[in-house]
Amino acid sequence: MTPSSQLQVMLAEENGATPSVRVVQALSEHGALSATQLARITGLAKSTISTALTSLRASAMVIESSAAEKDRGAGRPATTITLNPAAGTCVGVLLGGEHIQVIVADVTHAVISDVALPMKTDYSPQEAVTATSRLIGEAYREHRLSLQTMLGVGIAVAGPINPRDGRVLRASGVPTWSGVNIKHEFQRVLKCPVIAENESNCSAIAELMWGAAVGRQDFIFLTMDLAIGGAVVANGQLVSGNAGAAGEFGHICINPDGPLCRCGNHGCLELYAGLKEPLGEFSRQFGQEVTIDEVISLARGGNLAAQTMIEQVAHVAGQGLGIIASVVNPGLVVVGGRLALARELLLAPLEASFNRHSLVKRSELDADARTQVLSSAFSGRGACLGAVGLVLRAGGRTG
Amino acid sequence: MTPSSQLQVMLAEENGATPSVRVVQALSEHGALSATQLARITGLAKSTISTALTSLRASAMVIESSAAEKDRGAGRPATTITLNPAAGTCVGVLLGGEHIQVIVADVTHAVISDVALPMKTDYSPQEAVTATSRLIGEAYREHRLSLQTMLGVGIAVAGPINPRDGRVLRASGVPTWSGVNIKHEFQRVLKCPVIAENESNCSAIAELMWGAAVGRQDFIFLTMDLAIGGAVVANGQLVSGNAGAAGEFGHICINPDGPLCRCGNHGCLELYAGLKEPLGEFSRQFGQEVTIDEVISLARGGNLAAQTMIEQVAHVAGQGLGIIASVVNPGLVVVGGRLALARELLLAPLEASFNRHSLVKRSELDADARTQVLSSAFSGRGACLGAVGLVLRAGGRTG
Repeated sequence: MTPSSQLQVMLAEENGATPSVRVVQALSEHGALSATQLARITGLAKSTISTALTSLRASAMVIESSAAEKDRGAGRPATTITLNPAAGTCVGVLLGGEHIQVIVADVTHAVISDVALPMKTDYSPQEAVTATSRLIGEAYREHRLSLQTMLGVGIAVAGPINPRDGRVLRASGVPTWSGVNIKHEFQRVLKCPVIAENESNCSAIAELMWGAAVGRQDFIFLTMDLAIGGAVVANGQLVSGNAGAAGEFGHICINPDGPLCRCGNHGCLELYAGLKEPLGEFSRQFGQEVTIDEVISLARGGNLAAQTMIEQVAHVAGQGLGIIASVVNPGLVVVGGRLALARELLLAPLEASFNRHSLVKRSELDADARTQVLSSAFSGRGACLGAVGLVLRAGGRTG
Repeated sequence: MTPSSQLQVMLAEENGATPSVRVVQALSEHGALSATQLARITGLAKSTISTALTSLRASAMVIESSAAEKDRGAGRPATTITLNPAAGTCVGVLLGGEHIQVIVADVTHAVISDVALPMKTDYSPQEAVTATSRLIGEAYREHRLSLQTMLGVGIAVAGPINPRDGRVLRASGVPTWSGVNIKHEFQRVLKCPVIAENESNCSAIAELMWGAAVGRQDFIFLTMDLAIGGAVVANGQLVSGNAGAAGEFGHICINPDGPLCRCGNHGCLELYAGLKEPLGEFSRQFGQEVTIDEVISLARGGNLAAQTMIEQVAHVAGQGLGIIASVVNPGLVVVGGRLALARELLLAPLEASFNRHSLVKRSELDADARTQVLSSAFSGRGACLGAVGLVLRAGGRTG
């Protein structure tokens, strides 16, 4: 067996597997690890890890290297172990509103390729499969990678997915996709394991693996963009919800007498904290179409209308965070989406409003019991990276 | 060593312990189990379980019996194993608004004693410790139990507890207890391991161990009483929150322009769905003090005002559930508190309102993806039973 096919077999093993398999699955999820970290994560004795590594090195499944630059302290560099990058590749796909993004990474978590293709609004699942398949093929050809090394494809979708039947729920951001089983549609053509997950859940996974939430057990991800989305991680695990509808923060009702939302209910948070309406109003007032990025630039340059717009959505989003905190009281809020690029212009009024609407106030709590609010570590690339993470974390459990 | 002191040692072992210890901890948490269930829960081989049981039987730590009545199918009764009831007792304490309840149970989960003592409103922590200590002493004397067998005391408190420092938060139902470390106060006098937990979290644990949520991984508990409380269980684990303030459903803001709440914020769910205000109004209208139980009786007897009151709080609570479901999308809502005794009179309008305020509607989902709504399995005794459950589940990890 080649390292690549051997890796596919090992990643597909269920829990309770041999030490070698557990080492491979831990490296797949975490990237580079020292032998000590491997022992801690797998719960295996260091001597068992050592025996497993000897045989994995012999079969070219793992390689050793000195620690990456960022991890180097003052002392001698620690030896870290990674999977052999030649042994496997993973693909992350973001099915965006008006584009499809494809990232190819190797099993050491290194990004090899990152491309995007513009799509017309409301593209069909069939068009998405065709475009994705083409983008993947091109990326592999360009980087002289064999498609045989592809361990799986993770797909980030703008909408909740029912984990029981794999179908996109009606509440999706792309209404015409309602009822579609993304996994089946893509698997039929791509002929490899496919995992589909809600876009904000993917963003949360990226933060958990490489971003602002590394090592955190309890946090929420809040997407602030044209629409409002989110994800919940509790006790170290993603909370998907019984029908896949957890973390749908945009549809928290903050005003039952408010206007009709695209979801069919009234007064949803998204209507007040999403950028769609305010941007439209801004554009009408100023006689030209403006984007979120332009509003941020204007606000940075001192434009009062742009600053007020950001403050107003921050205020309502803070009210929403107060509600969310009464349900899960997270240790950390990671704010993503395009508006997160406004950084302090957004976070300062957001935190103030959040505190005002929280049951327990910051001033009553020691620092470690307060809820931290941070910007996403990624500038809009998080969801697609998280889709790669789906494959790396799943360790082949994609059936 | 006596079985009792031996049990205390074994329950205090950390994870990764010997097969015997793992068997004892599983029996402590689950009560009675068959050998097959023990193997599944501990992940140990059946032969290992068998060896462990032989030595545990020899030291009188476990006993065998035929299955309890409720578990008996048509076939021959299965042999179940429990801890030896003589080996240990656990105490659950509920610090209620106007009474203190104490339940003593043995390690097979059998309740030995259940007593309550009325207290004056706003009793102090010191008075609570004295009264609890007396109640425990009396119960042990009456049932000729040795206090040496007491493995620990679980305490249910009407208010969130910061898990980092063990102190009751200001948002407590008993404001004068704010800042008190319940565990320390009680441990000093009771001289045994003490675990303190929020009352609604205790209720959720009781439902999880013996009630409406047995075997469920994702559910919320909603307390409907004079006040509104709750608890969140996700992926099989209680979500306490970073400062212990998860599940504080009563303080979800449903109207930022609404009246001031005792928590200091405005328009909290509790102001609309709690029974305090409506009961007061009802009493004024009808010229006499009425209790929740009386309102339920009146409603059952056809009293329209009582029926309307229940429907109105059900409507608002359903709006709150819609919000909670957009955050965690639970598979099950267990409704507890005194008003839950209204059963269908409450649940029917509650479910209708919940569905109206939910992002994803029942009609769009297969039965298993819908959120079930059930009444609590306990009539107000759940929180104190859950406090017993804290000790049984903790397996001695009360440090």
